[in-house]
Amino acid sequence: MEPDAALKIIARGTEEIITPADLKSKLASGRKLRVKLGVDPTRPDLHLGHAVVLRKMRQFQELGHKVILLIGDFTGMIGDPSGRSKTRPPLTLEETRANAQSYVEQARKILRQEPDVFELRYNSEWLEKLSFKDVIRIAAQMTVAQMLEREDFKKRYSGGVPIGIHEFLYPLAQGYDSVALEADVEMGGTDQKFNLLVGRDLQKYFGQEPQVLVLMPLLVGLDGVEKMSKSLDNYVGVSEEPAVMFKKLMRVPDAVLADFRLLTDLEPAEVEELVAAGGMVGAHRVLARLLTAAYALEVIPAWLNREFYESLGYRLAEAGRDRQPQAPQNPELAGLVAQAEARYDEVAKGGIPDDVPTVTIDPAELKDGKIWVARLFTLAGLTKSNGEARRLIKNRGLRIDGEVVSSADLEVELDRPLVLQRGKDRFVRVVLGG
Amino acid sequence: MEPDAALKIIARGTEEIITPADLKSKLASGRKLRVKLGVDPTRPDLHLGHAVVLRKMRQFQELGHKVILLIGDFTGMIGDPSGRSKTRPPLTLEETRANAQSYVEQARKILRQEPDVFELRYNSEWLEKLSFKDVIRIAAQMTVAQMLEREDFKKRYSGGVPIGIHEFLYPLAQGYDSVALEADVEMGGTDQKFNLLVGRDLQKYFGQEPQVLVLMPLLVGLDGVEKMSKSLDNYVGVSEEPAVMFKKLMRVPDAVLADFRLLTDLEPAEVEELVAAGGMVGAHRVLARLLTAAYALEVIPAWLNREFYESLGYRLAEAGRDRQPQAPQNPELAGLVAQAEARYDEVAKGGIPDDVPTVTIDPAELKDGKIWVARLFTLAGLTKSNGEARRLIKNRGLRIDGEVVSSADLEVELDRPLVLQRGKDRFVRVVLGG
Repeated sequence: MEPDAALKIIARGTEEIITPADLKSKLASGRKLRVKLGVDPTRPDLHLGHAVVLRKMRQFQELGHKVILLIGDFTGMIGDPSGRSKTRPPLTLEETRANAQSYVEQARKILRQEPDVFELRYNSEWLEKLSFKDVIRIAAQMTVAQMLEREDFKKRYSGGVPIGIHEFLYPLAQGYDSVALEADVEMGGTDQKFNLLVGRDLQKYFGQEPQVLVLMPLLVGLDGVEKMSKSLDNYVGVSEEPAVMFKKLMRVPDAVLADFRLLTDLEPAEVEELVAAGGMVGAHRVLARLLTAAYALEVIPAWLNREFYESLGYRLAEAGRDRQPQAPQNPELAGLVAQAEARYDEVAKGGIPDDVPTVTIDPAELKDGKIWVARLFTLAGLTKSNGEARRLIKNRGLRIDGEVVSSADLEVELDRPLVLQRGKDRFVRVVLGG
Repeated sequence: MEPDAALKIIARGTEEIITPADLKSKLASGRKLRVKLGVDPTRPDLHLGHAVVLRKMRQFQELGHKVILLIGDFTGMIGDPSGRSKTRPPLTLEETRANAQSYVEQARKILRQEPDVFELRYNSEWLEKLSFKDVIRIAAQMTVAQMLEREDFKKRYSGGVPIGIHEFLYPLAQGYDSVALEADVEMGGTDQKFNLLVGRDLQKYFGQEPQVLVLMPLLVGLDGVEKMSKSLDNYVGVSEEPAVMFKKLMRVPDAVLADFRLLTDLEPAEVEELVAAGGMVGAHRVLARLLTAAYALEVIPAWLNREFYESLGYRLAEAGRDRQPQAPQNPELAGLVAQAEARYDEVAKGGIPDDVPTVTIDPAELKDGKIWVARLFTLAGLTKSNGEARRLIKNRGLRIDGEVVSSADLEVELDRPLVLQRGKDRFVRVVLGG
């Protein structure tokens, strides 16, 4: 492929490339480039936020280059020796290996893992061997003022929040990783720009050609405000059930829906047409179908474009108004998506879907054949406590067989299976046990 | 010795002890204490500024404790890897060893060097073995804000002068030296307080009893303003010829003469009496006699007190008015001092001293038996160039046989030995060779 064409593919959806000229020259070299991504050694649950960067890595693979997942086990195994952060206990070697393995397993959906395009490395391999003398030489390449330019350090320093001297060594260690790996490209979110730039400087010091930075925007979560993350519960996991993924994607706030285009290879013009034709709801449907299908596969396709969408039996020009797939290339996959969409529609209009999980209630819980409504919802797993159930009932948030529970004092007769419902879309069928 | 008495001896002349209670308890333990002094690995010329700390070390030795000269060869061998300071090239192992040997040789005048009270160590012994992991643990014990409290860092940071990250590691390395040596006491000038405190913190982290800091005032040089140092040429070397030492000590500015008492064990009350009786000139004479005598010895006495002064055949109560020593205990030493004083007095009243070095002039330099005056002074080594000689002549700063040279065009007849003089006290006798 011509370097210009490759550059165009890589550049799509990026926030910043440092520098495009350097990237073009590396692409033009004809070499297999080494594309690094640093990975935290704590156990991850991969979500679509991670997928933004991982898909770009996949595109490098498709262009013939090699991606390197670098597990930062070295610092993970040290923990926080200042003792300030009790929440960062050191990890054992076994833990870092297990966490890395879990990351790789989950990433299998997005990254190809054949040895010619994939490498898994641990930075303890070289960081453990560094001597104090080496550390001094590396540390001399940056100044305190430069380090305090990093946004989080700047805030903490001016806010009087302690910064351990060892924290200044971490960006340097990360930068040295690029030297050890002889990285040509390092990928990351825009929040990693500072750290990735350190890698460039250290490579120059060690006589290497500096790596190119490919910075991806940070995907906002379902709350439309914060960066997508598991801890904020505003995420869409890469291994969600199709129905859950479809539903979550339909809930993406309109204001940030355009950002989710990053997860596809639709052209901006195509998205504009789509919104013009189908409105926000239509755009949501197309996105939900496309991504639900892609992530239902064991390995998602390299290019999530119009062609892939239309292979499901829909037409992009219909902008989501075509509810039934027509002559899909992969009927099974199209069926999964159609089913998830149908379930979503059913719930959206207040119906009870077919695939509701069943919970069996122990007859010993009943008194005179009845059970307190709060206790019932908690046993069913829909509320965490009777107290939570009470509060939800007060807010008319719980239903039985579609009817709002109006009193928290209700005693429920359990003489037949009932469908309990929390909010719009959480359902459990309860039946009395043997 | 009672701990209180020992504490009193150690405390005399110190600027600060951190803490006196800790020191007393260490002195009371009955253990032989380990008293550390960090030494720069560059070649030193020991002067009376160094002697202030070294004499205090000697007093620890007299009290039965062990002093450790710690040569900071580790960082010396690294140099400045940031490349910012071109004036700090790395030292070789041989250089650091030779410099250390030179320091030890010169310190022999002040410190006892028997193995039971003296140890020479190099910090590369343990710092070379530290891994990156060790460095991170040590670095975590201090924060960036604490480090930027250090006076020189604070100034540089706020003044926009770059501070390499590696420079933050040096105080930590120095502190770790105290851990490796299990130091009970660390000595230093007041300008070392910050670094020495780091040692206390790191010892606590490593489960050791923290070292006591014994901080000595910094001796001001002969300019009366700057700290004594070779590079400012305001120093009195510990190995000066008696005449030179006597002369330099007579030149100590009145305002800082009291600081020079730190070099003796005279009690403050004795110095007050002395100044009351003999004025500043008398006090200068007593100090010059006492120190000239002490440093003329191969090993200076532990206690430079009234007793030592009076052993020279003078009486402290005479406050320097007694010009001739009477029945000294060591007539040879007393003679050396008396000779140095006589020479000083001779020059002070414009005379030419007896012990002027002789330089032989090659007859080929003469033309018609004469030589240009500027050339003559330069050949004699009193001026660096004919140009300098011209300038000095213009300022009436050069003399021949006590007569001011009035013209830079003078041709001098060299038919007999002449005494050339620069300023008040630099003399050379020139004679015609062969």
